[in-house]
Amino acid sequence: MKKNTDYIKVASYEAKQGEVKKILLLYSGGLDTSVMLKWLQDTYHVEVVTLTMDLGQQHDDLEAVRKKALKFGAVEAIVADVKDEFANEYIAKGIKANASYQGDYHLSTPIGRAITAAKAVEVAKKVGADAVAHGATGKGNDQVRLEGYILTLNPEIKIIAPVREWKMDRNEEIAYAKAQNIPVPTNVDFPYSVDDNMWGMTWEGGEIEDPSLIPPVENFLTTYTLPKNAPAHEELVKLTFQRGIPIALNGHKMKLSLLIQKLNKISGAHGVGIVHLVEDRLIGLKNGGIYELPAAHVVICAHKALEQFVSTRELNELKAQMDIKWGYLCYAAKWFDPAISAINAFNDNINEKVTGEVTIKLFKGKADVAAMTSPYGLAHTSFNNGEGYPFNVNASAGFIEIYTLQMKLANQLKKK
Amino acid sequence: MKKNTDYIKVASYEAKQGEVKKILLLYSGGLDTSVMLKWLQDTYHVEVVTLTMDLGQQHDDLEAVRKKALKFGAVEAIVADVKDEFANEYIAKGIKANASYQGDYHLSTPIGRAITAAKAVEVAKKVGADAVAHGATGKGNDQVRLEGYILTLNPEIKIIAPVREWKMDRNEEIAYAKAQNIPVPTNVDFPYSVDDNMWGMTWEGGEIEDPSLIPPVENFLTTYTLPKNAPAHEELVKLTFQRGIPIALNGHKMKLSLLIQKLNKISGAHGVGIVHLVEDRLIGLKNGGIYELPAAHVVICAHKALEQFVSTRELNELKAQMDIKWGYLCYAAKWFDPAISAINAFNDNINEKVTGEVTIKLFKGKADVAAMTSPYGLAHTSFNNGEGYPFNVNASAGFIEIYTLQMKLANQLKKK
Amino acid sequence: MKKNTDYIKVASYEAKQGEVKKILLLYSGGLDTSVMLKWLQDTYHVEVVTLTMDLGQQHDDLEAVRKKALKFGAVEAIVADVKDEFANEYIAKGIKANASYQGDYHLSTPIGRAITAAKAVEVAKKVGADAVAHGATGKGNDQVRLEGYILTLNPEIKIIAPVREWKMDRNEEIAYAKAQNIPVPTNVDFPYSVDDNMWGMTWEGGEIEDPSLIPPVENFLTTYTLPKNAPAHEELVKLTFQRGIPIALNGHKMKLSLLIQKLNKISGAHGVGIVHLVEDRLIGLKNGGIYELPAAHVVICAHKALEQFVSTRELNELKAQMDIKWGYLCYAAKWFDPAISAINAFNDNINEKVTGEVTIKLFKGKADVAAMTSPYGLAHTSFNNGEGYPFNVNASAGFIEIYTLQMKLANQLKKK
Amino acid sequence: MKKNTDYIKVASYEAKQGEVKKILLLYSGGLDTSVMLKWLQDTYHVEVVTLTMDLGQQHDDLEAVRKKALKFGAVEAIVADVKDEFANEYIAKGIKANASYQGDYHLSTPIGRAITAAKAVEVAKKVGADAVAHGATGKGNDQVRLEGYILTLNPEIKIIAPVREWKMDRNEEIAYAKAQNIPVPTNVDFPYSVDDNMWGMTWEGGEIEDPSLIPPVENFLTTYTLPKNAPAHEELVKLTFQRGIPIALNGHKMKLSLLIQKLNKISGAHGVGIVHLVEDRLIGLKNGGIYELPAAHVVICAHKALEQFVSTRELNELKAQMDIKWGYLCYAAKWFDPAISAINAFNDNINEKVTGEVTIKLFKGKADVAAMTSPYGLAHTSFNNGEGYPFNVNASAGFIEIYTLQMKLANQLKKK
Repeated sequence: MKKNTDYIKVASYEAKQGEVKKILLLYSGGLDTSVMLKWLQDTYHVEVVTLTMDLGQQHDDLEAVRKKALKFGAVEAIVADVKDEFANEYIAKGIKANASYQGDYHLSTPIGRAITAAKAVEVAKKVGADAVAHGATGKGNDQVRLEGYILTLNPEIKIIAPVREWKMDRNEEIAYAKAQNIPVPTNVDFPYSVDDNMWGMTWEGGEIEDPSLIPPVENFLTTYTLPKNAPAHEELVKLTFQRGIPIALNGHKMKLSLLIQKLNKISGAHGVGIVHLVEDRLIGLKNGGIYELPAAHVVICAHKALEQFVSTRELNELKAQMDIKWGYLCYAAKWFDPAISAINAFNDNINEKVTGEVTIKLFKGKADVAAMTSPYGLAHTSFNNGEGYPFNVNASAGFIEIYTLQMKLANQLKKK
Repeated sequence: MKKNTDYIKVASYEAKQGEVKKILLLYSGGLDTSVMLKWLQDTYHVEVVTLTMDLGQQHDDLEAVRKKALKFGAVEAIVADVKDEFANEYIAKGIKANASYQGDYHLSTPIGRAITAAKAVEVAKKVGADAVAHGATGKGNDQVRLEGYILTLNPEIKIIAPVREWKMDRNEEIAYAKAQNIPVPTNVDFPYSVDDNMWGMTWEGGEIEDPSLIPPVENFLTTYTLPKNAPAHEELVKLTFQRGIPIALNGHKMKLSLLIQKLNKISGAHGVGIVHLVEDRLIGLKNGGIYELPAAHVVICAHKALEQFVSTRELNELKAQMDIKWGYLCYAAKWFDPAISAINAFNDNINEKVTGEVTIKLFKGKADVAAMTSPYGLAHTSFNNGEGYPFNVNASAGFIEIYTLQMKLANQLKKK
Repeated sequence: MKKNTDYIKVASYEAKQGEVKKILLLYSGGLDTSVMLKWLQDTYHVEVVTLTMDLGQQHDDLEAVRKKALKFGAVEAIVADVKDEFANEYIAKGIKANASYQGDYHLSTPIGRAITAAKAVEVAKKVGADAVAHGATGKGNDQVRLEGYILTLNPEIKIIAPVREWKMDRNEEIAYAKAQNIPVPTNVDFPYSVDDNMWGMTWEGGEIEDPSLIPPVENFLTTYTLPKNAPAHEELVKLTFQRGIPIALNGHKMKLSLLIQKLNKISGAHGVGIVHLVEDRLIGLKNGGIYELPAAHVVICAHKALEQFVSTRELNELKAQMDIKWGYLCYAAKWFDPAISAINAFNDNINEKVTGEVTIKLFKGKADVAAMTSPYGLAHTSFNNGEGYPFNVNASAGFIEIYTLQMKLANQLKKK
Repeated sequence: MKKNTDYIKVASYEAKQGEVKKILLLYSGGLDTSVMLKWLQDTYHVEVVTLTMDLGQQHDDLEAVRKKALKFGAVEAIVADVKDEFANEYIAKGIKANASYQGDYHLSTPIGRAITAAKAVEVAKKVGADAVAHGATGKGNDQVRLEGYILTLNPEIKIIAPVREWKMDRNEEIAYAKAQNIPVPTNVDFPYSVDDNMWGMTWEGGEIEDPSLIPPVENFLTTYTLPKNAPAHEELVKLTFQRGIPIALNGHKMKLSLLIQKLNKISGAHGVGIVHLVEDRLIGLKNGGIYELPAAHVVICAHKALEQFVSTRELNELKAQMDIKWGYLCYAAKWFDPAISAINAFNDNINEKVTGEVTIKLFKGKADVAAMTSPYGLAHTSFNNGEGYPFNVNASAGFIEIYTLQMKLANQLKKK
């Protein structure tokens, strides 16, 4: 995006200078939000509180982030450990919905934005901030999610999107940072950006943007093993589900946030869950993204298979359709729309029976369901041990005659 | 299925003894249909013609099959080479529909049954047969597909399903075969059955039936390399699509039937396309199946990505929903229902723009789209080279305000 | 249907003579089920208990029906008053689903069959019957619903469908009745059959069967006024909804079963809710039907409008799709399938906010929503009294630019 | 909307003063667009050409409108008679889609906007205009449709929306008009606005806006008879369809535009097609509207019944779902999105068989399909004259046993 010399605030919710008294800044500790922290103080001349979310991301030293915020002028620097709330109230809904968008992107960032916005509204109230500032740009999905959700949950709060507003290009931003003694990363030319939480990491920028290029994943994927470097042996991992949610890993019961974090390591070690997608942004563009979703991918694969196992064919078709809708809504900043709540109720009902054990085989970047058991499995074998089929074979032709009747009529009439 | 001592014909289309004059038998050359060939002559006392379909299956010596039919009494033994028709008129529709059922099963058997039934009706007319006999059992999908399609295309033809009708269990069948000098395979205890065509192979039976067991794939998968034995290096393969159909492989133009057969070898060598599924049969049971779909899997992955690349977000959501419906209909013996024709027209329209090149990375059982280009790609980069985004960044907040309006109202009213 | 001289029982659930000890007969008191009552005693030589459902139908003297059953040999004659259960547990689900099938048929018979089957299973257990007999024919939907639901709720019970089984045509049936002193209606040539409950009446037979004929409704519709005979003035009726269910009529609180029965009279007097449809039967035929649904039509119209008023556009589109699915499932004998339960949960969630008042105008066969209020109505006027629109008008063009972006790109590329 | 003293142009497509050389104004001849005609000359200081669409509206003297435009300074005043193109290329697609939105609104305005935008782009090119101005406000759907479609079809054209831009409230606008000698209607307080074309009229404003009020339709509906004033006798009207489109009215062949206009008079005389709806605007508000759609309502009712008659149950369910999607897309300014093209292809395929005659009964505001015939009707009676049902009744129980199998298993397992 070119230097934006004339940003105009057209939305009624955008904060004007002089209009707000205290700003809550969503603060990651990186270059952009550190510059923002200073820039907000300089531009709006009000106190700034920072909020840093602990969503189980793996690469942050959150105590250091907190200290950095204070160092650069925050009157208060809050780190919110919401790992359990994130897992239990947000990711859990995603699991029941087999959260996927346009392929195997399991919606880690969109789900993360929902809790971030909710927490921002809550903290803003507590610290008396009348505006929230965030680091998202004017060209992506996250501005829609963050601003839309904050407005939805508290229409009184004003919002500031410094990247849309400030007049700095990349070089000017770095100059500004240096002038303010904000540390500038050595790999300032590193063209990739990342969003990180326990449910997944999203990489964008550089070659990833261009669908015609093969992204050099070895240059940026740092957390997990690439498939080609993964062990030469298969590993089996077992997930125990209760009412749609994994409650044990290889037989050990543990809370969901912990299970996801452990499973990230286990399946990440096999290079599982690296997804490359050219996807439709909400805002009308198509862009490439690389995702690292080791736990998410295994959990969704296992959940989908188990759910399908306990549901009727009629329901399986409908659920597959609804999962698509859920994915599109979640991606498209509709987390708090009644439409998604209604689908969640639909999913909760189905997941009453999604109980059982799923064994997944991990190997060289691939996760496959190898076996499963459930007291609600609708398979013949679990129902009626080898004593023949649960219907009279004489019935088949009767079924066929009636089942086929209309297709037959339609074809005969077509010939007329 | 237990010995069936009292099969009753309830459907009006089932042939009664004495009622038919000449039978066309769908003949694979295996034990079951060879026994059937004799049994039909013994039981119905009429001439039997055999029809063997050449659908590009890999393991059959079709000339030997033909001779075997004549040896066991067929008055005529026909081998129909329908490879091109199968590829161009049947599989092509599946490609445009991203043919998949309840996961990554690309519907090789259901699509194969449609052309088999159509060809049976055509050949029956030509040879003057007034009945068609087939080898499908009374407990599966194929009886519904074969009988339903034959009835649909010619309601006058009678149908015989010897497996439902005869009074033999497995041992009796073998005894019968021996008595008739029909060769019995040495691995008569081999519990797995297979259906084979160029679009894929379907394995059923034995441990595969039981979802709680991990099927010993090394015992039966014979065609392709298992992932663990696949090469330790990635291979890139390039498919060129025109209007939705692959027309070149690694830059070499070739007809679709050939492309699929070549691609089977290339991606099969990497163990790609082995799928294990517990699926809903049309007839109400759930059963496990193992599929080998090396070419199909690569083609569908590539097609799906390219189609998504050239379509709007609005259309991509709708197409994903329609693909699910197409998969359920195709599986459920509805190939000739006007519903599937209407979806095919929808797919044809979309695929007008599905033109371009897709590079797929094959490695250890996995196929991933690595890069793609298309003159119709809706990606920003191909449209507007780096000159900024195709909208005014000032517009974003306006979009967000209006886009979010109703969700905001709904949440405010909820609090009342 | 022609005289059926050779009915064959192919399904495992069909009762064989000598196999059952006591039969529960679903008894309406009409000619068919009275003949059945005798025929079952004659044929099966066991005791027969009758069950007559009080579903709020208008034309039955249920005490007389009970006595008639005893007179013709029933060892026990039970009348089950399930009006409240029918309204609260069955119709209520239909209201939340805007129950409609292929137009304005509000599914009175399919919903009635679900409770009838459930009650039959319950009563059969209580009276020790091991078989249930019913009056449905072999060519319609009701056999599938009744038999399917009974099997679903108790797979141990055997089922008898005398109309499929007995060897009598219409004249023989009348002769049999006369021989048994069963009263034969004077209008024995009356070609129409009816099913009646508080939610609606279904008329079939005669000219109704043939789509090319205009059915002479004055010959059979007896309950309600025809539109042409309805009053020349409009009448306004007001329904108060709470959580999706009407709880008051013209301001008077009353239980649902009573409200429906009263509303039948009020809107029936205006000829409202007469529906003529050529519909797809579950079993593959298309047949005409005439429905009288005065209360049902008004309730569904009102509910649909109010629900749409309190829901977001996103949700309204999805709910309309789900209502179609619900209607197809309900019609198609899937009341107890988990698929419909899951949709019911979806509907319950939405209906949490379907609270308010709806005024409906009745006139000459037509019901129109004239006005409505709701604390959850998402209309601007109720939200923000005349103080301008709830968004900055400057935002509109920003919205349009981004909203239209992809459609614009797609059209530009198409021209290439 | 309050006086807008500070309108800011944020979208890149909005014309700035001095930037455009010639403006094409979409001109209705009413007060707003007449004021606009002057205001544009005063404000932009360039030549203005007017374009008035002849879409078969009933109340316009288009020659007078043309002269008025010239009188108030248009350098050229064009009246485009697009009645046939509108009927054949636009409405015809709506008929095949059973065009309806959130009830019985048959999308007359949204369809009209598509052709208006297309024609504006075409005419602008011809007359050398580099900007298009229109009369839509900043709070409604039409700005999105007109601007979105114009942009889509020619991204080079700039757009002016004077109502968003000018600083006049209603009184100032009237004062401006008087100062310019523009005639001001005597009923200047008439709070209702109207959009009119052959497919329907849309009324908004006044009490219609408020869902809690019963709109006094007698105050504004001028074209057609109100139901209460309609004749006391029923009238039958017969439509002949060929491939989905009505080609004859009461047996007289005529082109579609004429048929619609004639049918407007016939069914309008019975008060048919008056629809009151509280609908979701695209832009997030809910508003009331009153529609007069006499021909549209009859055509859609007839088409829907005939289409359902010739299609299988499988297809009818899918088509109903797709019609909803089409209605939402058409309403939501997506006429030129590939998604709607693909659905049109789906609809075209189905409508190949929508051929036959439909008789509709008109009475006191209601239109009901009374009878229909089609060579492709899937009804039993037309197929098999009274010779019994087209399946063996013995087949029924076989069908039921298999059809119900999974629902039965699911319920048995639930009890565990």
